[in-house]
Amino acid sequence: MVPVKTIGRLSLYRRLLNTLLMSNVQNVYSHQLATLAGGTAAQVRRDMMSIGYTGSPKRGYDVRELIESIGVFLDSPRSQGVALVGIGNLGRAIMSYFAGRRPRLSIVAAFDLDPYKIDRVILGCRCYHLSQLAQTVADLDIRVGIVTVPAAEAQSIADQMVLSGIRGILNFAPVPLRVPPEVYVEDIDMTMSLEKVAYFARLNVLEKELAK
Amino acid sequence: MVPVKTIGRLSLYRRLLNTLLMSNVQNVYSHQLATLAGGTAAQVRRDMMSIGYTGSPKRGYDVRELIESIGVFLDSPRSQGVALVGIGNLGRAIMSYFAGRRPRLSIVAAFDLDPYKIDRVILGCRCYHLSQLAQTVADLDIRVGIVTVPAAEAQSIADQMVLSGIRGILNFAPVPLRVPPEVYVEDIDMTMSLEKVAYFARLNVLEKELAK
Repeated sequence: MVPVKTIGRLSLYRRLLNTLLMSNVQNVYSHQLATLAGGTAAQVRRDMMSIGYTGSPKRGYDVRELIESIGVFLDSPRSQGVALVGIGNLGRAIMSYFAGRRPRLSIVAAFDLDPYKIDRVILGCRCYHLSQLAQTVADLDIRVGIVTVPAAEAQSIADQMVLSGIRGILNFAPVPLRVPPEVYVEDIDMTMSLEKVAYFARLNVLEKELAK
Repeated sequence: MVPVKTIGRLSLYRRLLNTLLMSNVQNVYSHQLATLAGGTAAQVRRDMMSIGYTGSPKRGYDVRELIESIGVFLDSPRSQGVALVGIGNLGRAIMSYFAGRRPRLSIVAAFDLDPYKIDRVILGCRCYHLSQLAQTVADLDIRVGIVTVPAAEAQSIADQMVLSGIRGILNFAPVPLRVPPEVYVEDIDMTMSLEKVAYFARLNVLEKELAK
């Protein structure tokens, strides 16, 4: 099985390659891609071999071919719908960010308890009452969920997602989720990240002043 | 110096403690906080000792006191302003998410090249032309930056931020930033995270079907 970190890097390579293609770059060497991605050429080559792609030593990788190879490996052959729970400030921000970004991976259903949000279409996405989660996930064959509810409700939402058949969760709630081993969870905690950055920025400024 | 991971956990503890306080919980034991935070009681006690706080073995930690102690350690004694560069879809989402969330840590200036966005107030935040970055960062004594520009422009923006005196960067662009050692960078790549979740969700569903 390909490791979690390789999957993340392949996703990164693809975006870097798309940027190169937009600048009309047709070929790229592993060491060039490594510089862009912040890794080593050996790692790039290992990652590409893990998806069965090898470039030519003379001309490097064909950018267009490589983008396609990564897509074949990374993307679902058919569209994957995503369910988001929690249409608050953060939920809307996430819906807005992902709207139209990936045609094959998009938020197709959003859930909340607030009657003012239900049965509406927000940012191109149909909104449902939370009680319709299991039925909608089954109807639309959804396997991916995004949690954007407050910390106190996140575990209960994750439990409902897992029961509904969701097998991967992107969790924005600032709390670790307990899920069975067959469910993959990735956490993003934006407040924690900003607080860390602010703390170290302050510390770095302070250290510089003390060193004077 | 307190390690990076401890800073992240202190930020998490504080939010969990605030949730407990809202439910009228006055005292909490290290093992209870550990369960909520997904760690061990020993780690919680170590983390609290690193900020000089110890609870009572009988009644555990005083929730209100602990929130305050974490704040004294983690927060700036005065407000910290944040500069955001890139008022696109993602930038607005991030501005909307952080608006009013932390009174002492808020986005006070946003920058872009698009003349339609400049000199306006978007989501409570004043928008400037990118050429005003250095001056504004100096005027407002900003040390924290958020990068929400496309990958191709991220390094150049980071360079300008560092030159302007910014010492901590929260980077949403899907590309690693090269910065001097006195600058702290934290990366959040939402597309990569969602693609990883989707990949493993698909794999987990597939494995279950193959096991039948």
